[in-house]
Amino acid sequence: MAAELTAPQLIAQHRPTLDQALEAIRTRAYWSPHPEHPKAYGEHGGLDAAAGNAAFDALLNTRLDLGQPGTDGWVGGEVSPYGIELGVEYPHADIDVLLPAMKAGQRAWRDAGAELRAVVCLEILKRISDRTHEFAHAVMHTSGQAFMMAFQAGGPHAQDRGLEAVAYAYAEQVRTPGTAEWTKPQGKRDPLAMTKSFTPVPRGIGLVIGCNTFPTWNGYPGLFASLATGNAVLVKPHPRAVLPLALTVRVARDVLAEAGFDPNLVALAAERPGEGIAKTLATRPEIRIIDYTGSTTFGDWLEANARQAQVYTEKAGVNTVLVESTGDYKGMLSNLAFSLSLYSGQMCTTPQNLLIPRDGISTDEGPRSYDEVVADLARAVEGLLGDDARANALLGAIVNPDVKARLEAAAGLGEVALASREVANPDFPDAVVRTPVIVKLDGAKPDDEAAYMSECFGPVSFAVAVDSAADALELLRRTVREKGAMTVGAYTTDAEVERAVEEVCLEEAAQLSLNLTGGVYVNQTAAFSDFHGSGGNPAANAALTDGAFVANRFRVVEVRREA
Amino acid sequence: MAAELTAPQLIAQHRPTLDQALEAIRTRAYWSPHPEHPKAYGEHGGLDAAAGNAAFDALLNTRLDLGQPGTDGWVGGEVSPYGIELGVEYPHADIDVLLPAMKAGQRAWRDAGAELRAVVCLEILKRISDRTHEFAHAVMHTSGQAFMMAFQAGGPHAQDRGLEAVAYAYAEQVRTPGTAEWTKPQGKRDPLAMTKSFTPVPRGIGLVIGCNTFPTWNGYPGLFASLATGNAVLVKPHPRAVLPLALTVRVARDVLAEAGFDPNLVALAAERPGEGIAKTLATRPEIRIIDYTGSTTFGDWLEANARQAQVYTEKAGVNTVLVESTGDYKGMLSNLAFSLSLYSGQMCTTPQNLLIPRDGISTDEGPRSYDEVVADLARAVEGLLGDDARANALLGAIVNPDVKARLEAAAGLGEVALASREVANPDFPDAVVRTPVIVKLDGAKPDDEAAYMSECFGPVSFAVAVDSAADALELLRRTVREKGAMTVGAYTTDAEVERAVEEVCLEEAAQLSLNLTGGVYVNQTAAFSDFHGSGGNPAANAALTDGAFVANRFRVVEVRREA
Repeated sequence: MAAELTAPQLIAQHRPTLDQALEAIRTRAYWSPHPEHPKAYGEHGGLDAAAGNAAFDALLNTRLDLGQPGTDGWVGGEVSPYGIELGVEYPHADIDVLLPAMKAGQRAWRDAGAELRAVVCLEILKRISDRTHEFAHAVMHTSGQAFMMAFQAGGPHAQDRGLEAVAYAYAEQVRTPGTAEWTKPQGKRDPLAMTKSFTPVPRGIGLVIGCNTFPTWNGYPGLFASLATGNAVLVKPHPRAVLPLALTVRVARDVLAEAGFDPNLVALAAERPGEGIAKTLATRPEIRIIDYTGSTTFGDWLEANARQAQVYTEKAGVNTVLVESTGDYKGMLSNLAFSLSLYSGQMCTTPQNLLIPRDGISTDEGPRSYDEVVADLARAVEGLLGDDARANALLGAIVNPDVKARLEAAAGLGEVALASREVANPDFPDAVVRTPVIVKLDGAKPDDEAAYMSECFGPVSFAVAVDSAADALELLRRTVREKGAMTVGAYTTDAEVERAVEEVCLEEAAQLSLNLTGGVYVNQTAAFSDFHGSGGNPAANAALTDGAFVANRFRVVEVRREA
Repeated sequence: MAAELTAPQLIAQHRPTLDQALEAIRTRAYWSPHPEHPKAYGEHGGLDAAAGNAAFDALLNTRLDLGQPGTDGWVGGEVSPYGIELGVEYPHADIDVLLPAMKAGQRAWRDAGAELRAVVCLEILKRISDRTHEFAHAVMHTSGQAFMMAFQAGGPHAQDRGLEAVAYAYAEQVRTPGTAEWTKPQGKRDPLAMTKSFTPVPRGIGLVIGCNTFPTWNGYPGLFASLATGNAVLVKPHPRAVLPLALTVRVARDVLAEAGFDPNLVALAAERPGEGIAKTLATRPEIRIIDYTGSTTFGDWLEANARQAQVYTEKAGVNTVLVESTGDYKGMLSNLAFSLSLYSGQMCTTPQNLLIPRDGISTDEGPRSYDEVVADLARAVEGLLGDDARANALLGAIVNPDVKARLEAAAGLGEVALASREVANPDFPDAVVRTPVIVKLDGAKPDDEAAYMSECFGPVSFAVAVDSAADALELLRRTVREKGAMTVGAYTTDAEVERAVEEVCLEEAAQLSLNLTGGVYVNQTAAFSDFHGSGGNPAANAALTDGAFVANRFRVVEVRREA
């Protein structure tokens, strides 16, 4: 088949973007090629809001036939957290047919080399970017994110993370030259001379196990890191969040085919209800790489059992914000209120434990007692979410009944400083929309420990009274060491406390945000600049994205000959 | 304590070498700062031959007190494969005291930063290099290598591999800048501006589990990779090869102390006979990185059980040379004869299975039958080792009784094409010196499979008759896939066969040497240019040295603040 997309075309089109990405990961300055503003789409190409909405509507109640080998049935059943039945059917795969078929195209993909693989990946991302409005609806109606968040986090930010992974993968593969001449002097004798070639070779098939809350944002790094390093990639979406990744797979297959490669290099493994195919897939000998986002239990299982594979996991953690003092009390409260509210706290990066000295804190507005701080924070959240339209735009919907149950149970764990309230969503009357609960706990009470030392995923935060900054630091250290943390925040005007919290984070390998009072939030990271997780505490064994995330997805095979 | 070695001094002295190493791993051209010729030492500094010999003699029958905390006794008992009792005693550690002491200096070592850590490592390597003659005797009398090999492989080549690891570690750590300013436009509003710092942090304590045959060459990559990335390093030598690593630890401790760091960042864990401390150490929570060279059984155990650590293993493999045709029959025979003989085949890279078509091969001297090829190779080995002095210089001594037993048993596995003979060593009458055995096997006989599909470590090679080149390729593929291989060699003048063997090696991730007929051997790799192992087949899960070998020994912790 003649390729519709030729290598020179793809390189000419995407190499400048790749070079900018390579520069960005080196400087870690702000950069993104993917616009955040919905109105930017359509203007510069791609689907505008109306076209994206129409494209999404056209998907509903259809069969998404990807043309995959070994399709032995059709599965579906996604119900939006906003109440809509999506009615989309996906191919169910006979993996004994699909996996071998995925290997057929690997040699050509390997031989394409790092640069061509990178620009093919960039073409996939470009096509996805053009359809950001369509993807936004798909992410919204699987994750429960509000539209604007689904648009940004599920669109440009996810695409950024994918592109970042491609850039790291490319950089890693070209660290070793394709060929080398080696000439070793031998005194008066002729030198020894060898010609050497070095080829990055894939490990096999990468498996991406998607999550419910951020199917694209958490899925793209592993997908593109594995694909860019020459591996085929099988995408196993969360049963409640298939559509965004199925659309991704379809785009990838289209681009691969147009570029003259086997579309089966990327495939979808959707499952029947209760089928639980992740365990089966994860231990297949063909699967040599696994990227997983989800529960600690299953992440630990993968690390222990999928021994034939490189396993990259993002699991649960307990995120802490230490509140010791602040020079901008209002800014702190509004920043924290936003962090607790965004997507109803259903982010792996949302703060859970707010450690506040029981004797209170000093602020630019004078001292504030523990009770005052908690009450002021509760008021800040109430203020932020007082208007239902704004509340809906920030909170989105509760993603599944487990989160709702945890939210309801949380009120029984201690004194409720801020009760959760139901918010009506006029557009989607069946959506379950809830504001966060804040519960007071005492770090000195053994009975309270079970609550604040466990992850309570969802819109639940604990205002934990501590004896002192030193006590808070010790609890922070213990929490990160034992439970892991994707994020740590701290507010302090005391240079010594600041240095101490930095030291805890350096020693326990946790990512720290200090004194955030403006428009950057502890639960958000920017690709090309911020690391997401550290890979060095129990919350995750990998960071998005660094050299370690890509370097072991391929190996370099050397062939040497006498020159 | 005032540092005797200041950072500016160390940087001024070693930065140029580091820069050359960084350039070498990028171009993979020939480079080494460590002279191979014994006479080069003393001339340009360091101990000359006589001084090195005297230094070694002075070590015998002494107690090597490293000044380590928690020393609770003294252990020793090494007996040289050349028959000498070394009589050196080493500290035995109470690890409940030693491990915490090793952590005390980690913060200062972390705060030193990547560059200072690198040049401290280079100072350690320089001091070791200066004492290459002394180390050569220590390696010779623990590994059984002949002096010249112990000198080169245990000295400059090991130092090269250590320096290479430092270069990779440094490069990996400085990929992310120490600080970054991030400014994100916000349309008409003020931009978001953040100041970010990025700090490489160590994982904890690295454990190096040394091997009997190449204590320094196989030990240095992991030791220096972990140390250069900020970790403390505990060295657990093989009980029969303690001295070279104990000397290494002593030098490292001296340099660390002189540079103002805690010497306990590097320590030795020697053991009592039969104590088997590797398992205990490997599963201690403080141990977060393990570098191991040795049996597949224990390597697999480590990978399965030392779950708290990053585990880098070099295990056993079955190395194959495919002999299909050659344009330089004499060169091929002499090259292979040398490879089979060097250090009595006691290298993880020595060829074991020589796959030869039963119908013979074509050569520049006309066709040769299978029997002729095997007989000619046997004669080439006999010629190479005919003179006892040269035989001793090439073979060294059999490292331990297990190897001798395997060698003796091998003669019963099939028709012996070349019998092993005893070689007398006039300098060391108790040394066990043996020439290699070559045994004929048949790839079509199921009874022979158990022999050629197992690693028979030592001077044992199998001339395996195969039906065709295609048959050989299939056996090669199966051997690498099932048993792993550190090296693959092939001789062919047929472009199609050459391409096919390359393809097998690319698909199975094995390092290939083609048509070697001169002074480069399949079992030797050069640091900065050749990869040792691929990390992609069962023989090893890591390659010396690439990005993956260093990237996960540290994590990067980010601290961000509003600008």
